[in-house]
Amino acid sequence: MLELAVFEKMPDQVKISHEELESSGFCENPLFGCLVAEVPEEHKSKEGFTVVGYGLYFYTYSTWRGRALHLEDLYVMPEFRGRGIGKSMLSKVAEVAKKMQCARLQLSVLNWNTPSRDFYAAKGAQDLTAAEGWHLIRFDGQSLDNLANDAPKD
Amino acid sequence: MLELAVFEKMPDQVKISHEELESSGFCENPLFGCLVAEVPEEHKSKEGFTVVGYGLYFYTYSTWRGRALHLEDLYVMPEFRGRGIGKSMLSKVAEVAKKMQCARLQLSVLNWNTPSRDFYAAKGAQDLTAAEGWHLIRFDGQSLDNLANDAPKD
Repeated sequence: MLELAVFEKMPDQVKISHEELESSGFCENPLFGCLVAEVPEEHKSKEGFTVVGYGLYFYTYSTWRGRALHLEDLYVMPEFRGRGIGKSMLSKVAEVAKKMQCARLQLSVLNWNTPSRDFYAAKGAQDLTAAEGWHLIRFDGQSLDNLANDAPKD
Repeated sequence: MLELAVFEKMPDQVKISHEELESSGFCENPLFGCLVAEVPEEHKSKEGFTVVGYGLYFYTYSTWRGRALHLEDLYVMPEFRGRGIGKSMLSKVAEVAKKMQCARLQLSVLNWNTPSRDFYAAKGAQDLTAAEGWHLIRFDGQSLDNLANDAPKD
């Protein structure tokens, strides 16, 4: 997660512990699913890892189209890029989406991340922000507290 | 759902049945939660409805911040707008988010929907597409099938 955040130039945004991540993903009703890319021991990374990439996803819901799959993170360690690992993981996630009867696979990408945007476009994805004008809005911290405090009492 | 799609100028995008919606929302592991705005019988809509608005949400997950709440639809019938119903429902959803330990409440809005964008901004929301450059990407139909068909065999 931290490596992805560094790539996306937001390393200070990671505020989660390994324990929290583990308990959210490995429980009766997990909050997400995850695929990992593993290499054989003899091809392990410089730092000794055999897991060299991951794709983390969860299900969302559209009242127009039903269940969808959202790919939250797709990451391959720099030294393993350019070998089609990201492409293979994206395809495996698409396979999961089809198996789970999702009509859509969605994800968010930063606009300066041209290689990824070009890659998704080449694979036939639509950029809904460019095509339809969707903007992502976030309440957190004080703005979320303020909203919740204004809620009418039951 | 159809009324919202008409407002968003995409009425032909609604491809879901009432049965599908009901079975997805009212089951052991529902795919979404929903709040409704009800008026007393004597204030019912011209067409005779007492449910005059709804807010439909589900949970998402960030590997940087943990569980979040995504507000998928927020809708109030035109004849009931301007009375703070949308604002109250947004606050109730924020209350749900806080109760469920979500650090964030997120939603998507169309860029021509200036009243909503201004409203969210006035309540302290960040526009992540404008501020950080996030674009929403979608695979569906043939592009999703093609991706899934390219998946490496296990």
